[in-house]
Amino acid sequence: MNSDSNRKHNFSAGPCTLPLEVLRQAQQEFVDYQGAGMSLIEMSHRGKHFDAVAVEAMALSMEVFQVPDDFSVLFLQGGAMLQFSMIPMNLLTHGQKGAYVNSGAWADGAITDAKAYGDIYTAWDGAENNYTRMPTSAELAMQDHTRYLHITTNETIGGIRFAEWPEVDVPLVGDVSSEYMARRLPWEKFDLVYGGAQKNLGPAGMAVIFIRKSILEHTNRDLGRYLRYDIHEASGSMFNTPPVFPIYMFGKVLKWMKKQGGLAAMETLAAEKSGALYRAIDDSDGYYTCPVEVACRSQMNVVFRLPSEQLEQKFLSESAQVGLMNLKGHRSVGGCRASIYNALPKSSVDALAEFMADFSDNNARTNG
Amino acid sequence: MNSDSNRKHNFSAGPCTLPLEVLRQAQQEFVDYQGAGMSLIEMSHRGKHFDAVAVEAMALSMEVFQVPDDFSVLFLQGGAMLQFSMIPMNLLTHGQKGAYVNSGAWADGAITDAKAYGDIYTAWDGAENNYTRMPTSAELAMQDHTRYLHITTNETIGGIRFAEWPEVDVPLVGDVSSEYMARRLPWEKFDLVYGGAQKNLGPAGMAVIFIRKSILEHTNRDLGRYLRYDIHEASGSMFNTPPVFPIYMFGKVLKWMKKQGGLAAMETLAAEKSGALYRAIDDSDGYYTCPVEVACRSQMNVVFRLPSEQLEQKFLSESAQVGLMNLKGHRSVGGCRASIYNALPKSSVDALAEFMADFSDNNARTNG
Repeated sequence: MNSDSNRKHNFSAGPCTLPLEVLRQAQQEFVDYQGAGMSLIEMSHRGKHFDAVAVEAMALSMEVFQVPDDFSVLFLQGGAMLQFSMIPMNLLTHGQKGAYVNSGAWADGAITDAKAYGDIYTAWDGAENNYTRMPTSAELAMQDHTRYLHITTNETIGGIRFAEWPEVDVPLVGDVSSEYMARRLPWEKFDLVYGGAQKNLGPAGMAVIFIRKSILEHTNRDLGRYLRYDIHEASGSMFNTPPVFPIYMFGKVLKWMKKQGGLAAMETLAAEKSGALYRAIDDSDGYYTCPVEVACRSQMNVVFRLPSEQLEQKFLSESAQVGLMNLKGHRSVGGCRASIYNALPKSSVDALAEFMADFSDNNARTNG
Repeated sequence: MNSDSNRKHNFSAGPCTLPLEVLRQAQQEFVDYQGAGMSLIEMSHRGKHFDAVAVEAMALSMEVFQVPDDFSVLFLQGGAMLQFSMIPMNLLTHGQKGAYVNSGAWADGAITDAKAYGDIYTAWDGAENNYTRMPTSAELAMQDHTRYLHITTNETIGGIRFAEWPEVDVPLVGDVSSEYMARRLPWEKFDLVYGGAQKNLGPAGMAVIFIRKSILEHTNRDLGRYLRYDIHEASGSMFNTPPVFPIYMFGKVLKWMKKQGGLAAMETLAAEKSGALYRAIDDSDGYYTCPVEVACRSQMNVVFRLPSEQLEQKFLSESAQVGLMNLKGHRSVGGCRASIYNALPKSSVDALAEFMADFSDNNARTNG
């Protein structure tokens, strides 16, 4: 258990654990926001209270994520999934092509949606190695007239990430949903960075998009207004009623991150936490196995198998009994997965590593 | 003040006042949901807790709104604004046309977005009478090959509503955002009913859509998946991570509505509350004026003017001082507006009516 007597260790892949102090603050001010006589969620999004919340969250997101001034931040609805459509809709003009790395389930979804809106090709496909690694730059089959290379920097289901950024002649577009603000980005390589909020940033119901301002002059205008980046950017994400509660919570999470030491601290923590779990796997004499190539191991989603599916069932059942929750792998791949996002305390990872060692001691492979 | 000592009378046009008991329940269970050791917003949207929340909200929304079984309910992100695009994208196929009633700012937005996705025409335009009434059926200039007639059943800014439903030979598509679940609908006339949640249903960040199931066989598939009604319907709005918190709050609001007596009670309350304010206007000997034709007066958004803009400023300032908040008209039209959504207590309307009478007594027109 964590500091709160009943609080569980929450390894959910998203929506997922949030900082306890953020939850408590939000609870405390939920019914009467700052003495205004109403809840923040009852207020006009154009009023002074919410305006202050939104402006602060925008400024803090740029500061904490170390985003250069030539980018703007957008808070939109529809999650990363709507971005799968909006990116090609807005960015592909004049017969340009979109290149995609197919690194697993999420990349594949981005490719599927993009095909409705432009000339899309797969520059590398991880299917042949069952999505256990990312490509090297030399492996990318880039074509002429490519507008961008889309990458999923971390695949939540497969537990792989780009350890080294692709070196290509076109701008990158990156889905960073499952490692958002857990890692410094080489901003000069990117035209657009996006992801759903419901992992490292706050509750579900929002995508956060960082877009290079200069590309907004060239985006497609022949779209419904909600689908146009230029319109959202010009209105400071207030073109229509924004997702008030996720923005408010994101602001609180950003303040929490800053207090922890910001992006560098999140990066260090991610390396420490994932390191502890990969060590538990690697030191288990093959009891636990991780299918991912070592260089591409995710620092957010640690996937592992046990000697048999029966032992995996027992592992999931007994871990839940001691408060280690949501360790089941994605239904499409099975096995186990520990999602260890920014807000998950190191103590939760330590508890899991200890449980893993005990479990392998007490459950011989032949029991499977 | 309301029952809570500091609670204000909140006439905001949206986001807007919510039932106080709903806010208090949500606050109480915010950090540790039903003893699960985590907040609901920290849980997987595919887990048992949230699944129960979503299933209940869907069932209650059909029950409370008296929706026939041949409709499905969808909980999507992007507000009514994204629906402005999704409706023509999905519904207009094979050279069909979309007909629109231009009844004011929101209808005009729906028309603007639809034009990117099909052959759109305005069947009636309220511009000539400055959007102070809705059309009669005889005034609608319908064309051949029309797939649907889009209406904004209540215009939040202009304060007008359709008192009688259009009689046309094509299905209706209705934006009911600002009178959602405040009024019974003739479902047999509609193929699709939609609106943003942030007025009568809960916090911002969600659109609720009721769609006739039989039309899903004929909707356009050549779209990104988030933009396809058929995909959301087939997955029970769980195609991607849904807006967890708005769905949760909507479920609580629905339970509250049901406890109040359901849709019939909401309808009666809306008639009583709006009646009290229109009476305050009509009995003021012309001090307060409502520009809307009597038959088309909204029961949710009561707009009114004072004898001068100076008096309006004084009215807004003094009303706020006594806890009557957010009575300013939309910036595009000026004047005053009292939005009196379902969750606003009758006592708040009575307090406003009393304030209006006192104000007109104490501030002669010549003071303006």
